[in-house]
Amino acid sequence: MSSQSPLAMSEVSQALCIFFIFLLPLALAGLALINVGLSRLRSAAHSMMAALCLVGVAAATYFVTGFAWQGYPGLASHSVNIFGKEWSWLGAGNMFLRGVPLDGSRASLAALLQLLSVGLAALIPLGAAAERWRLRASCLSTVLLAGITYPLFAHWVWGGGWLERLGANYGLGAGFLDAGGSSTIQVVGGLTALSLVWLLGPRRGKYNLEGMPAALPGHNTVYVLFGCILSVMGWMGLNAAGSMLFGGVPLGRTVLVAVNTLMAAGGAVLAAAVLTRYRFGKPDASLSANGWLCGLVASSAGCAYVPPAAALLTGLVAGALVTFTVPWMEAHLGLDDPAGALSNHLLGGIWGLLAVGIFPRTLPFVLFANATNPPAAPGGQLIAQVVGVATLLGFVLPLTYSLNWLLNRFFPQRIPPEEERHGADLYELGAGAYPEFMTHTEEFSQW
Amino acid sequence: MSSQSPLAMSEVSQALCIFFIFLLPLALAGLALINVGLSRLRSAAHSMMAALCLVGVAAATYFVTGFAWQGYPGLASHSVNIFGKEWSWLGAGNMFLRGVPLDGSRASLAALLQLLSVGLAALIPLGAAAERWRLRASCLSTVLLAGITYPLFAHWVWGGGWLERLGANYGLGAGFLDAGGSSTIQVVGGLTALSLVWLLGPRRGKYNLEGMPAALPGHNTVYVLFGCILSVMGWMGLNAAGSMLFGGVPLGRTVLVAVNTLMAAGGAVLAAAVLTRYRFGKPDASLSANGWLCGLVASSAGCAYVPPAAALLTGLVAGALVTFTVPWMEAHLGLDDPAGALSNHLLGGIWGLLAVGIFPRTLPFVLFANATNPPAAPGGQLIAQVVGVATLLGFVLPLTYSLNWLLNRFFPQRIPPEEERHGADLYELGAGAYPEFMTHTEEFSQW
Amino acid sequence: MSSQSPLAMSEVSQALCIFFIFLLPLALAGLALINVGLSRLRSAAHSMMAALCLVGVAAATYFVTGFAWQGYPGLASHSVNIFGKEWSWLGAGNMFLRGVPLDGSRASLAALLQLLSVGLAALIPLGAAAERWRLRASCLSTVLLAGITYPLFAHWVWGGGWLERLGANYGLGAGFLDAGGSSTIQVVGGLTALSLVWLLGPRRGKYNLEGMPAALPGHNTVYVLFGCILSVMGWMGLNAAGSMLFGGVPLGRTVLVAVNTLMAAGGAVLAAAVLTRYRFGKPDASLSANGWLCGLVASSAGCAYVPPAAALLTGLVAGALVTFTVPWMEAHLGLDDPAGALSNHLLGGIWGLLAVGIFPRTLPFVLFANATNPPAAPGGQLIAQVVGVATLLGFVLPLTYSLNWLLNRFFPQRIPPEEERHGADLYELGAGAYPEFMTHTEEFSQW
Repeated sequence: MSSQSPLAMSEVSQALCIFFIFLLPLALAGLALINVGLSRLRSAAHSMMAALCLVGVAAATYFVTGFAWQGYPGLASHSVNIFGKEWSWLGAGNMFLRGVPLDGSRASLAALLQLLSVGLAALIPLGAAAERWRLRASCLSTVLLAGITYPLFAHWVWGGGWLERLGANYGLGAGFLDAGGSSTIQVVGGLTALSLVWLLGPRRGKYNLEGMPAALPGHNTVYVLFGCILSVMGWMGLNAAGSMLFGGVPLGRTVLVAVNTLMAAGGAVLAAAVLTRYRFGKPDASLSANGWLCGLVASSAGCAYVPPAAALLTGLVAGALVTFTVPWMEAHLGLDDPAGALSNHLLGGIWGLLAVGIFPRTLPFVLFANATNPPAAPGGQLIAQVVGVATLLGFVLPLTYSLNWLLNRFFPQRIPPEEERHGADLYELGAGAYPEFMTHTEEFSQW
Repeated sequence: MSSQSPLAMSEVSQALCIFFIFLLPLALAGLALINVGLSRLRSAAHSMMAALCLVGVAAATYFVTGFAWQGYPGLASHSVNIFGKEWSWLGAGNMFLRGVPLDGSRASLAALLQLLSVGLAALIPLGAAAERWRLRASCLSTVLLAGITYPLFAHWVWGGGWLERLGANYGLGAGFLDAGGSSTIQVVGGLTALSLVWLLGPRRGKYNLEGMPAALPGHNTVYVLFGCILSVMGWMGLNAAGSMLFGGVPLGRTVLVAVNTLMAAGGAVLAAAVLTRYRFGKPDASLSANGWLCGLVASSAGCAYVPPAAALLTGLVAGALVTFTVPWMEAHLGLDDPAGALSNHLLGGIWGLLAVGIFPRTLPFVLFANATNPPAAPGGQLIAQVVGVATLLGFVLPLTYSLNWLLNRFFPQRIPPEEERHGADLYELGAGAYPEFMTHTEEFSQW
Repeated sequence: MSSQSPLAMSEVSQALCIFFIFLLPLALAGLALINVGLSRLRSAAHSMMAALCLVGVAAATYFVTGFAWQGYPGLASHSVNIFGKEWSWLGAGNMFLRGVPLDGSRASLAALLQLLSVGLAALIPLGAAAERWRLRASCLSTVLLAGITYPLFAHWVWGGGWLERLGANYGLGAGFLDAGGSSTIQVVGGLTALSLVWLLGPRRGKYNLEGMPAALPGHNTVYVLFGCILSVMGWMGLNAAGSMLFGGVPLGRTVLVAVNTLMAAGGAVLAAAVLTRYRFGKPDASLSANGWLCGLVASSAGCAYVPPAAALLTGLVAGALVTFTVPWMEAHLGLDDPAGALSNHLLGGIWGLLAVGIFPRTLPFVLFANATNPPAAPGGQLIAQVVGVATLLGFVLPLTYSLNWLLNRFFPQRIPPEEERHGADLYELGAGAYPEFMTHTEEFSQW
């Protein structure tokens, strides 16, 4: 994969790849709508305003330094030699994208893709920290994400770094595989979300004195479910572009990528609807939406490598994962995550990464007729994936937690609890989202 | 058309076709929003939740068996020989898309297109049966649609079946022409909608004891009209992809397809706005939105064959059609169809199919400068189109009605009328879409 | 630029260009949502209904006569010879797009692009004249815009006209440069908006007897901000398609165009958020959304010519521009412009046009590594841009004002002020947008 020249790509492939990348704003739009819909009414404008700002901050930061430190296979990077093996650990490009001709080369497409996908990563903590994360702090936290955490880990996976070379260097399958960003985008964003949920604590009124969680339903289920449909289009673009740029798949194979993305989302929403029906008596709309999104997240890593039946199965598991872990994290871990981002993006991403290593070995062969690129050494592939996940949990989580902890020292990230009652809209923006609609705000305020 | 190899397509055409297909989720998103906006508030979450589930069910069912039975010109199919002519009546592929290399071949693109467009067909009955169709039953009904009705008829039109061969076998024009799915998607979905409206009966409170209909306005006109704008983009993709895959048009001609799609929608919304203005004193927003959608539906069949002026005229007629038939079906046929799906998709689709046979013969020649592919034998073309429509009404309607009638025996499809008052949201999902907004629910409940 | 044959374009470029054009409906959808969200609740359905109608009217008008009068380099046009130089001032094509083969040629792509972008121009006055512009009059005014003003000026810039030839004829840089339509779409639309704001006067209750403006906040901030995210995707398509068709840039350079578009929007929203924070104490969501949009508008002219750092700077200035001019025009010029269209589209467009002439000369060279097409004669370039802006203000403004003034004589464009209190929805459509939600209409009615 890393043997490609950073410049060579046929014009048709360039054009198709440009097209895929141009779909990413729909993933941003969908995720932003899901976040807004799952927030309470008093924070709706704040949530959407923050989404717009974070997309801007993420793109600007990544433009200034992010891509320089991430790099691309074939571009300059910093390496250390450990026991005779080259470990590339950081890109060594120029700031402001200087030296990356924005002319359709592979490297330029990777840069464009990530100017948008780093914004997607930034929206993940926004959902988890909804209603209590200050706008200024969220912008500064996004600078850390887009400037440090994201490019560092993405270099290892997508920029020619050591995780990508696990296969070549140590014979672990084809190296750590992640075509669409289950790790670089989703888990990295999810770990930032986890750090913030820890640092900010739950919303006022979420838990009573005995620690029992209260239900604080989102204010617009239509936004949430509509956002899911937009997201699938954005994700089809994301997965397909990633597969071409980081997975090295040929143009026509993006059909497989799209089928897989769709199967994962469809399977996940059905699993979540059926399971919530049996667990709670009625299907739960917001958990089903979370399921759909979790299916998309889990589809990313393997979208270019597994047959559609495996993608469907990945989605079914993702839907089940959401159904069980969202209530469990809320009730037993005390994690107040209004958008379910920890389940969707963190756990869903990890599941997707592992699925790449699991499915090619265990699925009945008959379903494999379409698998056109089985990893070279199936056994080692799962180990490579586990190494990647361990790196995320063992290195990226402490890093992002420390950075956000430090930030919190200087710029308190949390809206003062006594102001939460009036909502983030009034406190931070001075105006609500829906001034002419009558609302039940008091009833839903609690405490 | 059916002489193309299922594999041959230039890389550029593949790329463009992939792009067009990737736009389809916007047609789903638009149609889902239109359905939601035209439902009452108490069923909003239910409508959108069902949309998400039906898209998932449709894709999964079509993946498992649908495409195997639909096939594609050049793939295996079941035929009978009648009076010396080959009648291909069912595809003979493998389940799970096995044997269809998902590599950008024509057959793989047709499969991907329809994993999405079968979901579009499934959203049509959802609009017509809004507020009273149970979620489980709608999922099962979609299994029947995506697994049986849709692939069967689509094989005849798009899979190398007998309708497509009417030209070659009997000299009827170029055979039954439907580039963008006016029949396979829209009329098939519309006939399912008609069956359900018959089976479920009207909403509680829609008709009084004398059979006079009450106005039950949709709860969000902004959603409806916004959904129209999203739909046009999805339809441009649908029509263009269908034209390339099923109409055999070259890449550049998709410009004509896009112009035609746009002209039909524009003409239809203007016709509907002007006609409702003169019929009811003021332009009617929801009928105008229906007009726009009906224009899109009618544009599909002929988008690749007629000049833009004919498309504009097709749209004008479609807009008029909606204006007259929506109130008429409601008042005189006792059909309670909140989304106007019967006019938009069923009648609009039939009109579009016939227009392909009518316009090339009757429009003044001067408008034809752009028609680059006039059907070979104009006279026979209209007959071919009529044969297709007759097949839809005479075969597909009884089939889909019987299937849904049977389903209704085992899984009652209707929400119990005594529960309707509280809305599908509460009854099926246990929660409303907008918990924090104050509503006039009681006033709008009626009975 | 004008030396290209109207027919020659590689198939890959055609395909990519078709794709870019197909994204434009998202710019329409986004702008329509922004307009609706910034209107008051009582006019929400009217705003969206008008958007749908204007898009239809604009496309139909442009189809009938617009493109004939605009033309394309290489197609027939009317010229006068002044002092030995050819001045092409009007296209000389056929009505109904006859003679333009809709087959993927450059001319056909330009026609398709503008069937949509002329609708974008029509939505600009709709935002500025919100809540008081009659539907019929707005349709007729759009006929004038799409049939006369737009094609006339667009011929001069994009159709081989005299502004485009300023470079070849008088050595002014590369002639008037506007790759994405800052002038032809945005400023032309903005000048129409200005004319209407003058002709219609402010909304009832906007100014008290002393001329002090009242705040009449929009009714849905989520729509506004969500519309911004959709817009960026539409604009990426608009800028990229324009750059290929009117800027003559090669396929791969559209990566630069996309990066620039994103940088301008991101920079603008951050500038607006920070500046409103310091000016008003809290960041203002609606001004920030206006900033984002203004950044997009300003990015269009130079998107293909400047390095990303210049685009970022263009955006920062655009964000500041909005922050200062929106309140200033409202308070000191008595211009009641609910959507901020005058700042976003008129001033933002002019700024974008001038920026093309300014930045290549003044930015430090180090940021230029990516500028691959510096205008030939930097000094003259700014003069060419100023000539274009002067033409807009000195010729297009009087023209569009006169046309709308004349229209107003025969079809009064304003909703009678005594009816405004009940809202455009009730007066023009007979029904509100949200019949089941309870609203504070009375409180927000004022006077």
